[in-house]
Amino acid sequence: MSVTDLPTPALLVDADALDHNIDVMAAARPGAALRPHVKAFKSSALARHVAARGGHRSFCCATLREVEGLLDADLGDDLLLANETLDGDRLAGLVARDDGRITVAVDSPETVAVAAAAGAEVLVDVDVGLPRCGCLPSEAGEIADRARAAGRRVRGVMGYEGHVVGNPDRAARTAEVARSMALLREAHDAVGGGLTSAGATGTYDLHDWVDEVQAGSYLLMDSHYDQLGLPFRQALTVLTTVVSTSPSKGWAVADAGLKAFGMDHGNPSIDDHEVFFCSDEHTTFLAADDGSLPAVGTRLRMVPAHVDPTVAYHEVLHVVRGGELLDTWPVDLRGW
Amino acid sequence: MSVTDLPTPALLVDADALDHNIDVMAAARPGAALRPHVKAFKSSALARHVAARGGHRSFCCATLREVEGLLDADLGDDLLLANETLDGDRLAGLVARDDGRITVAVDSPETVAVAAAAGAEVLVDVDVGLPRCGCLPSEAGEIADRARAAGRRVRGVMGYEGHVVGNPDRAARTAEVARSMALLREAHDAVGGGLTSAGATGTYDLHDWVDEVQAGSYLLMDSHYDQLGLPFRQALTVLTTVVSTSPSKGWAVADAGLKAFGMDHGNPSIDDHEVFFCSDEHTTFLAADDGSLPAVGTRLRMVPAHVDPTVAYHEVLHVVRGGELLDTWPVDLRGW
Repeated sequence: MSVTDLPTPALLVDADALDHNIDVMAAARPGAALRPHVKAFKSSALARHVAARGGHRSFCCATLREVEGLLDADLGDDLLLANETLDGDRLAGLVARDDGRITVAVDSPETVAVAAAAGAEVLVDVDVGLPRCGCLPSEAGEIADRARAAGRRVRGVMGYEGHVVGNPDRAARTAEVARSMALLREAHDAVGGGLTSAGATGTYDLHDWVDEVQAGSYLLMDSHYDQLGLPFRQALTVLTTVVSTSPSKGWAVADAGLKAFGMDHGNPSIDDHEVFFCSDEHTTFLAADDGSLPAVGTRLRMVPAHVDPTVAYHEVLHVVRGGELLDTWPVDLRGW
Repeated sequence: MSVTDLPTPALLVDADALDHNIDVMAAARPGAALRPHVKAFKSSALARHVAARGGHRSFCCATLREVEGLLDADLGDDLLLANETLDGDRLAGLVARDDGRITVAVDSPETVAVAAAAGAEVLVDVDVGLPRCGCLPSEAGEIADRARAAGRRVRGVMGYEGHVVGNPDRAARTAEVARSMALLREAHDAVGGGLTSAGATGTYDLHDWVDEVQAGSYLLMDSHYDQLGLPFRQALTVLTTVVSTSPSKGWAVADAGLKAFGMDHGNPSIDDHEVFFCSDEHTTFLAADDGSLPAVGTRLRMVPAHVDPTVAYHEVLHVVRGGELLDTWPVDLRGW
């Protein structure tokens, strides 16, 4: 099948760019030094490809659905739910399957109680500067004690420096990572355990202390991360069709909009054209510098500004090389 | 089943607010004077409820998937794809089912050719001020002539005044609607046909000329439309669970974020709390004016800023009255 036969909008993954990204990351952070974050791509088929080619067998999840899907895909060697959950019944059900190792982030007595009752191992989540989940470093020891008192294994600590991962100034990123990791070390001293986990695509090569980095965006990439000058290639595009064009007015319209792109990082982009605005099923874009506009029926590949919430809108990822369709991977881990 | 048993995040529809909205709109624009736009809710079960309670039998679609789903739901009396399509094969397949009436918006020789070859009726889409699809009023007659020459019925004209529907100044909205409809009249004079179609929730009661208004957001509503002082109630919320809270830092975190809310109109909102920011699976929000924060495990209902791209992230709509779960409706029309 050819890419030109696909109905649009369609999510495309450039096979060569994806493999380049897997290889670059695996060289920098081989095996267990990387815990690929499935939230960025939500596909167990893509996770399987990353495991096979990149050699990583531990995965990072943001939702119980992602944990469940990786167990179903026989990728449950070492799954970290890097998120707090109060859904004890579902967590207990996943642990009781006994076909994988499940570790859960905890940052409060309540989340420790849920994880402990469910029988999961825990990782103490520490606030290292992002205003979100995570206990204070000074509280981490007590959280760990509670989990151990409930009979659970405490694997160590995690701390996500999400406030710095998008900073385009590499020197500033480096300094901020060091500051965050000083907080995580303080927590680790109190918690113990053999595992320290942090990071993201934007800081994957700035960590010299933690055992593993949690990164997912590096696989598919987006225009927001592209500003950081990382060695990863843009592998993800949304294939669209031009459905209307107005040379006299200087704009044209592609058939993908707010329901095809995560918009929190701004508009998607199109080579040679400035995007004017997106509406539910359309993107209006302006003529190129030379005044040209594509004809009605033209296929255009657009680049999302933020990969994670973009993929979550789509049912499948089409794996392509040039104009050839190689494979179709379900986005089977979306939802919750 | 109780609402408290639902895993979160979960999309909730308040049954009473929904029925209020249906009744208010049906009183203002009864029967065929309203063409409910399914893009706002993407559920054939909800469309069936609107047909039964509101008495509307003609529906408006933005995608071929929506057309297909309404045919499957036996709601195909009069379906308008209010959007241009170049996907002739899929359109022809839907027309060939012969279990509904399908009309397609056209604005160019190319889209006329596709619609004509597929055997669909057409409505000439006119640019009345929104920089998107639609021909110039002066081009509308020629578009209609092409369709008729190809043997297709031309039902009339449509023109969406999307540039004005969100203006909170009612007098300005009224004046802009009149300006847009003057352009649509000019096109209609050249095109003929018995159908004139325009509008949206924000202008549903400002049209005194067109036969029908295309509105969908009025059913579920969002915080963006709520600024207009319309008589529709907020029926849609996202049920979330507080997974982390930091009284010393002054924030807490709910378990729904960029993959649970369309973000193009800004952050979702929470009663009594200012939303700080959203990330993939979280919303960080600030303490109330009295300094209080909800405890870990608290259920919160959040209001999306934009209904359409919010619903498109979810698999089901849970119909509730207070804490009681009445029904679960699949969001079966999402995707393309």
